Amino acid sequence: MLPVAVDAMGGDHAPSAIVAGAQLASDAGIPVILVGRAADIGETDLEIIEASEAIAMDADPTKSVRSMKDSSLVRCAEAVRDGRASGMVSAGNTGAALTAATLRMRRIPGVARPAIATPLPNFGDDGTPNILIDAGANIDCAPELLALFARMGAIYARTRFGIEAPTVGLLANGEEASKGSPLTKAAFPLLEEAAWQQETGARFIGNVEGNDLLGKAADVIVTDGFTGNVALKSLEGAAKAIVAALLGAFDSSDDARKGAQLLLPALAPVYERMNPDTVGGAALVGVRGICMISHGSSSANAIFHAIKTAHELAESGLVQELSASLSEG
Amino acid sequence: MLPVAVDAMGGDHAPSAIVAGAQLASDAGIPVILVGRAADIGETDLEIIEASEAIAMDADPTKSVRSMKDSSLVRCAEAVRDGRASGMVSAGNTGAALTAATLRMRRIPGVARPAIATPLPNFGDDGTPNILIDAGANIDCAPELLALFARMGAIYARTRFGIEAPTVGLLANGEEASKGSPLTKAAFPLLEEAAWQQETGARFIGNVEGNDLLGKAADVIVTDGFTGNVALKSLEGAAKAIVAALLGAFDSSDDARKGAQLLLPALAPVYERMNPDTVGGAALVGVRGICMISHGSSSANAIFHAIKTAHELAESGLVQELSASLSEG
Repeated sequence: MLPVAVDAMGGDHAPSAIVAGAQLASDAGIPVILVGRAADIGETDLEIIEASEAIAMDADPTKSVRSMKDSSLVRCAEAVRDGRASGMVSAGNTGAALTAATLRMRRIPGVARPAIATPLPNFGDDGTPNILIDAGANIDCAPELLALFARMGAIYARTRFGIEAPTVGLLANGEEASKGSPLTKAAFPLLEEAAWQQETGARFIGNVEGNDLLGKAADVIVTDGFTGNVALKSLEGAAKAIVAALLGAFDSSDDARKGAQLLLPALAPVYERMNPDTVGGAALVGVRGICMISHGSSSANAIFHAIKTAHELAESGLVQELSASLSEG
Repeated sequence: MLPVAVDAMGGDHAPSAIVAGAQLASDAGIPVILVGRAADIGETDLEIIEASEAIAMDADPTKSVRSMKDSSLVRCAEAVRDGRASGMVSAGNTGAALTAATLRMRRIPGVARPAIATPLPNFGDDGTPNILIDAGANIDCAPELLALFARMGAIYARTRFGIEAPTVGLLANGEEASKGSPLTKAAFPLLEEAAWQQETGARFIGNVEGNDLLGKAADVIVTDGFTGNVALKSLEGAAKAIVAALLGAFDSSDDARKGAQLLLPALAPVYERMNPDTVGGAALVGVRGICMISHGSSSANAIFHAIKTAHELAESGLVQELSASLSEG
């Protein structure tokens, strides 16, 4: 298997956390190749693709990708395009990563717009993550795009998590078919169509609500990138606020500290299930290659899991599955 | 002070939980009057306004309000309109409650559309709740509506929570002014205008994100009702899933049970801050009267707090404050 190309220059803790994460992956037997300035990366046994520029976290995505042709992000996407890497991972500027992957790898035929698929912890039945698509790539969507996201989400759920007959829900403000925004109401009949469900094995279950994101209502939750971004960050904000409040309580008295100590073994698996580092990160689906988009704040452990996911997605043949399904459609 | 009219027939646990909540309010010295079928309400010392019909939780809001003129919801709104009650509380059909309040109380002059203001627990600095507006009344919004919501939200923050100079944020997919949907981008310059900020004492701080909802970024978070509903339910879903997972962990072994016992006193205030029952519930703002909209699943305690909030809002002169500000505008 080809190595995963890792953007060493992208992220709040780059390059140190990125290089450390890549080393963890290499130690676990996953081939990796770092992309960036060798001088900044420093001492490492990992292979490096030299790239002289780094796109800043707050740079304009389109402008920077077009002008910084020797940036680590652009070189990552080119490594995938040119068959030097099986996929790419970046914790850098999200918009620039989307743009670089879309422009350099290009879209799969039939894909009007790639979308971000983000796994969400599932506190329902079996614990297989749910997939939110689009989690932020496409802010202004036509109904046909939501139908495309549903199809790509279903194929992603099968390829990534082995869900043969994924249930697909449309994120709205109520379960009844009569509820929804003009966009979701226009998308609803497209999602109801039998053809795409038969072709993908998916089953459209109608509208789902914000409180279904972490539950067993649907394996794939379809939305536009604006709503998806707000919903995802709402979940993250709630989890972070609650965990911080709990940690404060755990340390608020001697009794509390003693209690927390006793509880720790029971709490560890709950924390693990919620931990975005280990769930594996967001994937850009619809481009001709694997592109994992990690949080800017990613730790070495988060980068390791993103590399692992990229490697597994490449092995699973996600791009081939999407290409086969979408070229039929 | 006039009594608060309480819809005895609305809610998953009506009338028993509703009547029990009204009794708690009465015991606390808040005047209440029940509205519903006396035969269903049963034994009580509380005053009753007889209403022969009850609008079902899943009935079509507009149709049912127009056709069921002797329903408890319509009679509640009429009691406020006719000066028999200081405000109303319902845990029934939300859409019907909005419609009944809007049609019977009518809108405050200058209010194109009333909106739902929902307090969110604030894990930031001082713990005063943040306000999300609109949390679900208006699914399809023009930019001018978001500007109205900002103004009403600022006045609500001052009147309800005593925040003299509330900060107001626009919910979007990124903090930068360049981020946003076509709707939020069009609303942004309206919110930037100095006039409404000077008149209300509010300060527009720009875009905020989903992870700012429970933090100190802004006192008032403005959004359309579709996004607001999804964000609110995402928060609720996350909190519920995490609490359920924690409770499971607390009961998973003898050590865990012992630890949980020791932690309980430290956890109680965290739980209390998150508990939607005690934060006080959602208010419909922009109509000529107080209308509190409670969760269908409301307990007696939740109803008690909603009645208390309705009473306090009536005493605070919210409607007069809104009228004065909006008629100037």
